[in-house]
Amino acid sequence: MSSSKIHTNRIVILGAGNVATHLALALKKSDQKITFIYNRTINSAKELALKVGADYSDKIHEIPADADIYIIAVKDDAIDDISRNLNIHNGIVVHTSGGISIDVFQKRFKNVGVFYPLQTFSKIRAIDFSEVPVFIEANNAETKKSLLHLAQSISKSVTEADSEKRKGIHLAAVFSCNFINHMFTIGSELMKKSDSSFDLLKPLILETVNKALELQPKNAQTGPAIRNDKTVQENHLKLLEEYPEFEKIYRFVSESIYKSHSKKEN
Amino acid sequence: MSSSKIHTNRIVILGAGNVATHLALALKKSDQKITFIYNRTINSAKELALKVGADYSDKIHEIPADADIYIIAVKDDAIDDISRNLNIHNGIVVHTSGGISIDVFQKRFKNVGVFYPLQTFSKIRAIDFSEVPVFIEANNAETKKSLLHLAQSISKSVTEADSEKRKGIHLAAVFSCNFINHMFTIGSELMKKSDSSFDLLKPLILETVNKALELQPKNAQTGPAIRNDKTVQENHLKLLEEYPEFEKIYRFVSESIYKSHSKKEN
Repeated sequence: MSSSKIHTNRIVILGAGNVATHLALALKKSDQKITFIYNRTINSAKELALKVGADYSDKIHEIPADADIYIIAVKDDAIDDISRNLNIHNGIVVHTSGGISIDVFQKRFKNVGVFYPLQTFSKIRAIDFSEVPVFIEANNAETKKSLLHLAQSISKSVTEADSEKRKGIHLAAVFSCNFINHMFTIGSELMKKSDSSFDLLKPLILETVNKALELQPKNAQTGPAIRNDKTVQENHLKLLEEYPEFEKIYRFVSESIYKSHSKKEN
Repeated sequence: MSSSKIHTNRIVILGAGNVATHLALALKKSDQKITFIYNRTINSAKELALKVGADYSDKIHEIPADADIYIIAVKDDAIDDISRNLNIHNGIVVHTSGGISIDVFQKRFKNVGVFYPLQTFSKIRAIDFSEVPVFIEANNAETKKSLLHLAQSISKSVTEADSEKRKGIHLAAVFSCNFINHMFTIGSELMKKSDSSFDLLKPLILETVNKALELQPKNAQTGPAIRNDKTVQENHLKLLEEYPEFEKIYRFVSESIYKSHSKKEN
């Protein structure tokens, strides 16, 4: 951690999707050298390669064997297959998945690790990568040091996390990202049914989030479930009769809110 | 709507909780005259009355009978009881609840209505009331006109909504506010279990919300459920074994995400 000068790595990115794209752009910005983009569809490989000034291919055997770091940023279930077919010398091989263990690499490479950025990425949205927390794991001390340096070159928030800890964080992220987005989808559907625009919920949503982040969510809970207001809840369930999935969510989330908070008082 | 000058009403507020407080402060700021605060505990009545320069009492028969507008901003299940005991001349009586019908007033008053601000209020947090959507209902045209004027004096977003429409909006708000806060509570619990701070989720949460508001939530959905990634989901359910309520939520929200999006393709 004492080295103030950032070492320039020759980096190969495997994948050209949302994570691969944002990571490649952030690394290029911090003067790392992206030498090669591999992707199974050539058009996306080319598109990203042009952005970062790299060579590219859709053939895995064309990947140069002498790079310093290989970052596999593909769908979870493709990581194993890609790493099985990757032939390299001594570089570090990492994947970027929250939910996949470092053991996915088996004994295929000498230096392996995980480089997990905790964020939801879309190609069409700019991200300030310096604010994205990155979690690092490695199979040896030298590799860990290299990965920590690499992560610190693009993010202010770098933490070590083994595979078990990372899986817990990933699960927390599913609730705090994927699941809240679905609550918004349901909200939007119900607003449409009431001939109203989802936009009318914006001030409420922004205040809810700011309040939770400032007060801690457990202290910010309001609504009929925490008050155990059965009359309002029965009315709501009646309105949800035509949406059986939303009705189930309403029941179980309300029950969980009530139980989480009545436990607190014990 | 043609009157550009804002009529000054003499207003009585019944209640001194979160909604009553924010509403009273916003009305005072727009030069309406709050003459009286009633609350069943005298200390809160006094506290709010001092803030807005009003008289106050914890005795309902001490409320002046000649005000223009009576705003009942109390818990849902107390509205009926308070309105039953309220003796007034010709003023307008409204409640502020999303989930309660205008019929709660029965035939007790000549002019009744609803004044529903769509926001989550806490005494300790400042709110820009001009951004809060207000939904108005009334039992006659003259009352509706007065309430629209009153609402427009404090908010840029005023909409008419009958009780049925308002209940739909309130239900959408429960999903978009109360339920997302519970998702954050679960996220926070799982982070704690992984020896990690909830703060690490902040950049993810802020990006998730901004993305949903810009792209519409249905277009912003990501994660294992929409990909129908059973391996990741089974791993997550294993991690949730010690949290039976969270496990149920995980199952049903995942199922609902998958179904909502597979329907879209039909």
